[in-house]
Amino acid sequence: MTEAEPRELFGPAAEDIRKVETQLRQEIQDDPPEVARAMADLFVAGGKRIRPALVLLAAMCGTYDAVRVLPAAMAVELTHAATLVHDDVIDRSPTRRGRPTVAAKLGDEPAIVIGDYYFAKSYELAARTGVPEVVHILARAVMKICAGEVRQQSIRYRYSTDIPEYMDRIEAKTGTLLVACCEIGGLLGRLNDAQRVALREYAVALGCAFQIADDVLDYTSTEEEVGKPIGQDIREGFATLPLLLAGVKLDDHRRLEEDEVRHVVDAVLASDGPRRALEQARGIAAGARAQVSTIGESDATAALAALADYVVSRKL
Amino acid sequence: MTEAEPRELFGPAAEDIRKVETQLRQEIQDDPPEVARAMADLFVAGGKRIRPALVLLAAMCGTYDAVRVLPAAMAVELTHAATLVHDDVIDRSPTRRGRPTVAAKLGDEPAIVIGDYYFAKSYELAARTGVPEVVHILARAVMKICAGEVRQQSIRYRYSTDIPEYMDRIEAKTGTLLVACCEIGGLLGRLNDAQRVALREYAVALGCAFQIADDVLDYTSTEEEVGKPIGQDIREGFATLPLLLAGVKLDDHRRLEEDEVRHVVDAVLASDGPRRALEQARGIAAGARAQVSTIGESDATAALAALADYVVSRKL
Repeated sequence: MTEAEPRELFGPAAEDIRKVETQLRQEIQDDPPEVARAMADLFVAGGKRIRPALVLLAAMCGTYDAVRVLPAAMAVELTHAATLVHDDVIDRSPTRRGRPTVAAKLGDEPAIVIGDYYFAKSYELAARTGVPEVVHILARAVMKICAGEVRQQSIRYRYSTDIPEYMDRIEAKTGTLLVACCEIGGLLGRLNDAQRVALREYAVALGCAFQIADDVLDYTSTEEEVGKPIGQDIREGFATLPLLLAGVKLDDHRRLEEDEVRHVVDAVLASDGPRRALEQARGIAAGARAQVSTIGESDATAALAALADYVVSRKL
Repeated sequence: MTEAEPRELFGPAAEDIRKVETQLRQEIQDDPPEVARAMADLFVAGGKRIRPALVLLAAMCGTYDAVRVLPAAMAVELTHAATLVHDDVIDRSPTRRGRPTVAAKLGDEPAIVIGDYYFAKSYELAARTGVPEVVHILARAVMKICAGEVRQQSIRYRYSTDIPEYMDRIEAKTGTLLVACCEIGGLLGRLNDAQRVALREYAVALGCAFQIADDVLDYTSTEEEVGKPIGQDIREGFATLPLLLAGVKLDDHRRLEEDEVRHVVDAVLASDGPRRALEQARGIAAGARAQVSTIGESDATAALAALADYVVSRKL
């Protein structure tokens, strides 16, 4: 693992991110074992904790009240985990973070219910802030992600997508929850309207940069490094930016065979698609940093800017 | 349809139940069509609206504030609908309320995501009450239902269950959300502690009576009447009270063939299992009425008592 240390990545939020992790671990340990075991496995296997860090750092741009902010940060991380559990049922993914997915280990039926449990727990944690608006923001974000996901399912195996459609898709998929994190942090930190708008734009850009970098790694990394098979996006029927920029053409409307997946991966790697995609991601990350600079200068804004750099430089 | 008219069943809540229905229909219409179409179908296909009626009637036992109570009533009905969508994925049920299930019509993947969408919307509606405790009660109820559901999956095809285990199972499955409805109504109506305890006991009993009656109908009704195949419980691998009281013995650990299902249904119908099960349900319903009588005398308590009678006398 060559990942940056959370302490250096999250700046002034580093200590409270550790609290979020400890308290979440304790929460899961107190859940019924039939749902908790699978979630504990997923949780200890890793995760960058970028979403809770965004809640904390956004709140730290204003007036920071840990009693309200910590449950909100726990809520967004658990929402993310619950979406992963259901995503892995839907995508029939064998592994996640280097381990069998909940669905692969226990079956689809328990995985659906365990996801429902942890979605519910997310909203319950959001309610612990005592601010109904936090539940509202989180729930609206999940609704937007779900609507995008149903649309995404309908374009599966449609490889002739274009870049605007791809950008819309990743904004819905990854950007939405990151925007919600910043909105929740901004609300609890009592930021002013201009600061909240800037944070929102920052989160949209961060999400796009992050997802493009992720989609590049799906081609350029190794299974060992990312903890899941390489070429998983195209295997699941989705054309991502490296493929679109590589100009590789595929017939629509069918799942690729495993040797075809290998062939597509090789063709993309032989092209300048991954490099150009990463360049785009870096340009978008620079835009994210520019938004943060309008919020003010503090350890919190410096950490937000550093996060934007991190997501386009990470190796996994 | 020989169902009682909601107006006569729900007493003083009849008019606001119509508002709940109209507003929910409008909410669903305003959702993205890719998720809303399936939910609109399920919603117009029926449902007894017992859960929102419990919220309204419980609140009417105290100080009734429609602005807070109506969103809460919408939330519990939508939570119920979301659980049905996921249940039908898990149980591979072909029909629900006489129509193809969301999973049967659109596939498991969209059904999972559409369920997630409407769970999220439920919590968002709960947050619209402005009372975080409402979100808390609803979320804890869903968590309890989910934990029970995972346990239930592990005892599937274990026909040698006993009556205490059966009662635990139906209390978790059906009672939990009804208890939450009464707790939310009691909270918003500012009932005193003794009234809330009585309402809670009422809801537990109502749920058990309701579920036993439902489980009897699964044997004694017709597919046309209940809108789903007869013998569905045993087909899905669950022994219910009519079977347990019939003394029909089955080998554990395997799914029954269709001719075996038919054989079991016939054996149960030839026994006094359904009659004795319904007697138990009626005894439990009488207990529910006794709890209500301790709350006070009003149109609302009269309607709650009538609901307890209704659930053990309904034909579908």
